[in-house]
Amino acid sequence: MGQRDKIVAAVHGYIAGFEAGDLDAIMALYASNATVEDPVGTPIKKGHDALRTFYAMGVGAKAKLKIKGEPKVAGNEVTFSFEVHVDMGQGPVVIDVIDHMVFNYYGKITAMRAFFGPENIRPAS
Amino acid sequence: MGQRDKIVAAVHGYIAGFEAGDLDAIMALYASNATVEDPVGTPIKKGHDALRTFYAMGVGAKAKLKIKGEPKVAGNEVTFSFEVHVDMGQGPVVIDVIDHMVFNYYGKITAMRAFFGPENIRPAS
Repeated sequence: MGQRDKIVAAVHGYIAGFEAGDLDAIMALYASNATVEDPVGTPIKKGHDALRTFYAMGVGAKAKLKIKGEPKVAGNEVTFSFEVHVDMGQGPVVIDVIDHMVFNYYGKITAMRAFFGPENIRPAS
Repeated sequence: MGQRDKIVAAVHGYIAGFEAGDLDAIMALYASNATVEDPVGTPIKKGHDALRTFYAMGVGAKAKLKIKGEPKVAGNEVTFSFEVHVDMGQGPVVIDVIDHMVFNYYGKITAMRAFFGPENIRPAS
């Protein structure tokens, strides 16, 4: 599989991991020393232990991701637009997000940054 | 105007600059030593002279940008999804792009990176 195909597969695997509530499947997409900044501007989480704790929250809250359009692959990087449907205890909301991921040669994510702000969150209709 | 409002205004100014074919308006959004990597993976252009040459091509080809959804502002950065409608001499095409911009304190763009690949380009219908 070429690098582009690995990256596209990882993006769809990420979405599918949330859909299935499969924390291990999400973690398997990440390199061991990977970093996550979600949302951008908050402290960076580094390494599988920190990432697992972070993703356990999303999976525990049954967050579902709905991709919008095709991923934009360029070199070893990708951005993609999606909605997060989740209820973190204050009623169901939809968050419009753009993720940026960087990949290593093996097709594992080494860095992820999630772009959204308060104005990108709305009550689910 | 707060930093978030400056960033959102710059994004809409960028779109409007293409709409009006106004190269100066686009250049005015950039800090003097700004960098542009468009698309990601190609050589980085740095400084107003290099950026002006680059944007003169897009404006000359009458490229029009159509934003999709709201910009995602996080800290001093933004990502946003849009279509480019352009004819570079091989017939009209639509390119699905996500731009990432970083801003300085004055609300000027210091770095722009455009994410798209061949699979994000389609003939205009």
